[in-house]
Amino acid sequence: MSVEHSDIDVLVSEVGPRDGLQSITAIMPTAAKIRWIDALAAAGLREIEVGSFVPAKVLPQLADTAEIVAHARGKPGLTVAALVPNARGAEAAIAAGAHKITLPVSVSETHSLRNVKRTHQQMLDEARAIVALLRQVPAAQRPKFEGGLSTAFGCTLEGPVPEQRVVALAEALLAAGCDEVGLADTSGYANPTQVKRLTQAVWRAVGRQYLSGIHLHNTRGQGLANVVAALDVGLTTVDASLAGLGGCPFAPGASGNIVTEDLVFLLEAMGLRTGIDIEGLVAARSLLAEALPGEPLYGFIAAAGLPKGFQPASPPRGGS
Amino acid sequence: MSVEHSDIDVLVSEVGPRDGLQSITAIMPTAAKIRWIDALAAAGLREIEVGSFVPAKVLPQLADTAEIVAHARGKPGLTVAALVPNARGAEAAIAAGAHKITLPVSVSETHSLRNVKRTHQQMLDEARAIVALLRQVPAAQRPKFEGGLSTAFGCTLEGPVPEQRVVALAEALLAAGCDEVGLADTSGYANPTQVKRLTQAVWRAVGRQYLSGIHLHNTRGQGLANVVAALDVGLTTVDASLAGLGGCPFAPGASGNIVTEDLVFLLEAMGLRTGIDIEGLVAARSLLAEALPGEPLYGFIAAAGLPKGFQPASPPRGGS
Repeated sequence: MSVEHSDIDVLVSEVGPRDGLQSITAIMPTAAKIRWIDALAAAGLREIEVGSFVPAKVLPQLADTAEIVAHARGKPGLTVAALVPNARGAEAAIAAGAHKITLPVSVSETHSLRNVKRTHQQMLDEARAIVALLRQVPAAQRPKFEGGLSTAFGCTLEGPVPEQRVVALAEALLAAGCDEVGLADTSGYANPTQVKRLTQAVWRAVGRQYLSGIHLHNTRGQGLANVVAALDVGLTTVDASLAGLGGCPFAPGASGNIVTEDLVFLLEAMGLRTGIDIEGLVAARSLLAEALPGEPLYGFIAAAGLPKGFQPASPPRGGS
Repeated sequence: MSVEHSDIDVLVSEVGPRDGLQSITAIMPTAAKIRWIDALAAAGLREIEVGSFVPAKVLPQLADTAEIVAHARGKPGLTVAALVPNARGAEAAIAAGAHKITLPVSVSETHSLRNVKRTHQQMLDEARAIVALLRQVPAAQRPKFEGGLSTAFGCTLEGPVPEQRVVALAEALLAAGCDEVGLADTSGYANPTQVKRLTQAVWRAVGRQYLSGIHLHNTRGQGLANVVAALDVGLTTVDASLAGLGGCPFAPGASGNIVTEDLVFLLEAMGLRTGIDIEGLVAARSLLAEALPGEPLYGFIAAAGLPKGFQPASPPRGGS
């Protein structure tokens, strides 16, 4: 979590416009994406992963990512993040003006080969090529570069993933020049004990300041349980997707991000400030329902409502 | 958790046959209930709340509770629990041979009056009347008597419930002669911070040995997140319902027990032994689907399956 967010305790990073949309076949019109991102920012989200710089023929759902980045950059206080599969994607992300780019690297090499046809060494080469590109950008405009450790908690193809391999890849990505790494439970395999243990193992190897975030899937209903462990150990950034839209299309059965509005309820109920207005999030679901007719939306708080007399930890947001 | 369960770390107490069935209008035939309970016991469950001794005109779904208790008592190693709303129900539960009886007492007096038309004083009188009945039972046959602190985490009618009131009612129930108390999140209002704080507050007042269990609802999707907090603080008994069947019909919007099979997956993945075979639980869902056609079944693990290479903490069960 970066220093400009001293008024919040946990940074909720919305990944629906990227992870959500890439996992469904419907293509959301650009104008609808913009309305959605506007509503998310108005509800108080500080970081949104708005798309992925992949070839349009691979993910036509995200073909307008440059345009979305350009729009989202106009929102004060919003960190505009984008996924990049390689140096070519990073070049496009830099040109579009993304504030943060994430290169996902599967700790399971089998998954990496299946997903992007690259070995770990090839992915580390991509990371170094991206760092070389970033060095040409003036420091003030340079996006932050995250190495995303996919399948860090296990893989649908390989099964259990040795923790030492996660640690080694984290070290290699930082040595290649990433500013930070993040842990991703691509397959919904994580459990709370593992979340704590793996986070601490990476911290011991690379230092706490290089890992602050976790990306959890709710495939087996354990998403928020894992968040409790992540908070307990001291992670401060948690990814989520409004209405639980999305997942990874390349990991069979690995659907379902944790639900942003349920996550924010959890955090605010625990007394942790997110700066986010839960009712604003719930209202934004209607934009998804409109723009993606027939697409299933998930989550509990939208159906059950807030508890009677609920007091969030964050002060009320003015104006939006 | 009682001493006879030294081979497990957490006691999962199944409440589907009581809390699940009381919340739906369909009436499950006695033979189907028996098949369900048999399957639960075969999967390794050590405690099942099999019904409630309430008048058949109030809950016709549970009119056969005495018969179900008599059957379940035949299963070696199974604690047969039943809910009792008053001394008359306790008398019937004792006659039927229940091993454990729970008198639910709403910490929210408004909820108590709405639900059972009784003040706290009247409920404490019931507790004392039940203790008087129990004293007439030879010690070897005497059921354990739990006071269930309903709406302990908040109430749909009153909103927040002061912790001091929970503590005072726990003390009063134990003073009335209950063997133990349990915390129940009737309305799905609990959060992990509150679970820890309230458990510790009750422990400070009455001693750890008098509170070991928690009954959580998943109304707002926070059920397993709250379990992580409960485990962290040291609670050792967690209620759940196969396929998430049920909830409380008297608390508007308060539907949904946590899902037994998802809970057991959480625990076993964390390295905590439950003695329960997850696949046996998942298979038992088909009995519910058959006996309660059209009734929604919940849960993730049944849909997603176990992770590739998953190793539960409990040793494999032989024979069943």
